Amino acid sequence: MAGSEVGGSIEHGGSLAGARALFPHAPEPWIDLSTGISPYSYPHSPVPGNAFARLPEPALAQELKVIAANAYGAPSAAHVAAGPGTQILLPIIASLVRSGGLAAVLSPTYAEHARAAKMAGFDVTETDDLDRLASADLAVIVNPNNPTGGIVPESDLLALAAAMRAKRGLLVADEAFMDVSEAKSTADMVDEGGLLVLRSFGKFYGMAGLRLGFAISHPDIIAKIENRLGPWAVSGPALHVAGEALADIPWRQAMRATLGEDAARLDALLTAAGIPVAGGTSLFRFIRDPRAQALFRHLGERGILTRRFQERPDDLRIGLPGENDWSRVEAALKAI
Amino acid sequence: MAGSEVGGSIEHGGSLAGARALFPHAPEPWIDLSTGISPYSYPHSPVPGNAFARLPEPALAQELKVIAANAYGAPSAAHVAAGPGTQILLPIIASLVRSGGLAAVLSPTYAEHARAAKMAGFDVTETDDLDRLASADLAVIVNPNNPTGGIVPESDLLALAAAMRAKRGLLVADEAFMDVSEAKSTADMVDEGGLLVLRSFGKFYGMAGLRLGFAISHPDIIAKIENRLGPWAVSGPALHVAGEALADIPWRQAMRATLGEDAARLDALLTAAGIPVAGGTSLFRFIRDPRAQALFRHLGERGILTRRFQERPDDLRIGLPGENDWSRVEAALKAI
Repeated sequence: MAGSEVGGSIEHGGSLAGARALFPHAPEPWIDLSTGISPYSYPHSPVPGNAFARLPEPALAQELKVIAANAYGAPSAAHVAAGPGTQILLPIIASLVRSGGLAAVLSPTYAEHARAAKMAGFDVTETDDLDRLASADLAVIVNPNNPTGGIVPESDLLALAAAMRAKRGLLVADEAFMDVSEAKSTADMVDEGGLLVLRSFGKFYGMAGLRLGFAISHPDIIAKIENRLGPWAVSGPALHVAGEALADIPWRQAMRATLGEDAARLDALLTAAGIPVAGGTSLFRFIRDPRAQALFRHLGERGILTRRFQERPDDLRIGLPGENDWSRVEAALKAI
Repeated sequence: MAGSEVGGSIEHGGSLAGARALFPHAPEPWIDLSTGISPYSYPHSPVPGNAFARLPEPALAQELKVIAANAYGAPSAAHVAAGPGTQILLPIIASLVRSGGLAAVLSPTYAEHARAAKMAGFDVTETDDLDRLASADLAVIVNPNNPTGGIVPESDLLALAAAMRAKRGLLVADEAFMDVSEAKSTADMVDEGGLLVLRSFGKFYGMAGLRLGFAISHPDIIAKIENRLGPWAVSGPALHVAGEALADIPWRQAMRATLGEDAARLDALLTAAGIPVAGGTSLFRFIRDPRAQALFRHLGERGILTRRFQERPDDLRIGLPGENDWSRVEAALKAI
């Protein structure tokens, strides 16, 4: 399964079944460093049975929007839509801009943005030239970028949002990894229009299985997204966990520091193994090196899954090991 | 909140905050009989931490499709798409049929079908005349119907599906309450085309907070729906719980009997109180009576929430009490 692209579906990290097929002799358990998901899950209180059993209470969903607006710096809860993961929001958002136009995605980046825009009827350009985004009706920037870690200055983002606003287009700023970035979120700037910010809950809070993501934009756009989602878009367990986690500012601050230390620790191991780190964020490190494929295989044979990119053989993304996984990762890198 | 329709949103059951606003002096805790969700939650094994923390494993999602195809009688897993609730599937499904045409919804029924079709650009007719559905491009039948419990014979459904197929339209058969019906599901008939069956997981398994629903249709249609959903559409907890529940045939058979007994018990209480039961399913009972509004208030003042319908004041839907709630419901009905 890994390495193949069938029927328009895109390869992603996180599939251990695919890893086992590729490296049948690798030792178990697998260490999955193929995603950018934190190895530290938020220590939430037990999810009550009612959160599973009952329809998610609308008042709780509204409360989560208030908490999220505060956590992410959105102007108000009316500027926030919550959905079951940002992934499922992408085609909905693309369809809000008039179809048949041009979409431009700052690349290389998370491949689902281009796929969603194509699905919504756009001609899609994937470009590494920021200036080319201004000619599009739908512009997409992942900031900080996945997998390179590149950051676009806020002044450039706001200029682009203004250009989009003038032609009733939209700039989508996917801030999936902003929680661990030194860059400033543009979530506080959405009220002018022309800008939509995506925030992912599961990555920083180590809760990707919950499926929860947020769109932050002008209330008119948020209302359209919520119409498309309909009632009960967020599960009861997600409302419970995220309601606690997003309100816990001390945990967030401490975790940013912890992840920063872990990223530095991984960099030190890679550097000692002679592999230069080209970028990334505190949730994943990025390598651009002719030995990337060899490193993917070397680690894979030792039961450590990383993320390669079929179309860019020199690129490799390595997530952070969990507390019990460092010794195996260290041994594997020392054995190079 | 209850009783209002703001900004295109539709009133639903399940909001205790709305109930408290309407009946501020009602005793707590509220007994929520305003939905058609089973009071018996499936006794699943504990959800492992990994189901929350990791991205849902694609192999597990595929396994759930196999289990669901078997449980619901679909021809194969390729005929099944799983999403985070059937609700979020409705606009996706409506958008698969060419827009600008006519949608017809057999009514009165679950109001979100008409809303989703309007959102997808259809002219929408809500009609109680089955024959009028054949002239539509998108026909919707809730079977058994919510709230009346009415059943459309399979021969009529298949004739309608054939008519839809001939003009590249689609019949959506929403079988949200089929688990407790004596009627036959048409999930085994989808391979011919022109037909899409919806199945809801949360209602029969008492797990509405999980958000899980299935579309069953021709594989070409399923592929389009899955493209729109993208990867990881179903949460880790939902994969865990539903994988166990849908494979547990003995539990399903026993629960059908239990719910049937409970429905009969509720009917006996209503009949003894002089209120005739007009229909429903084993997950809710349906009343069409001039005293419906008075009964809604009588029960509401006693902390028992039922489901009224703004546009049809004689209609009332009453869900099944949980094991500990029967005595209060019985006392409230005896006090009429």
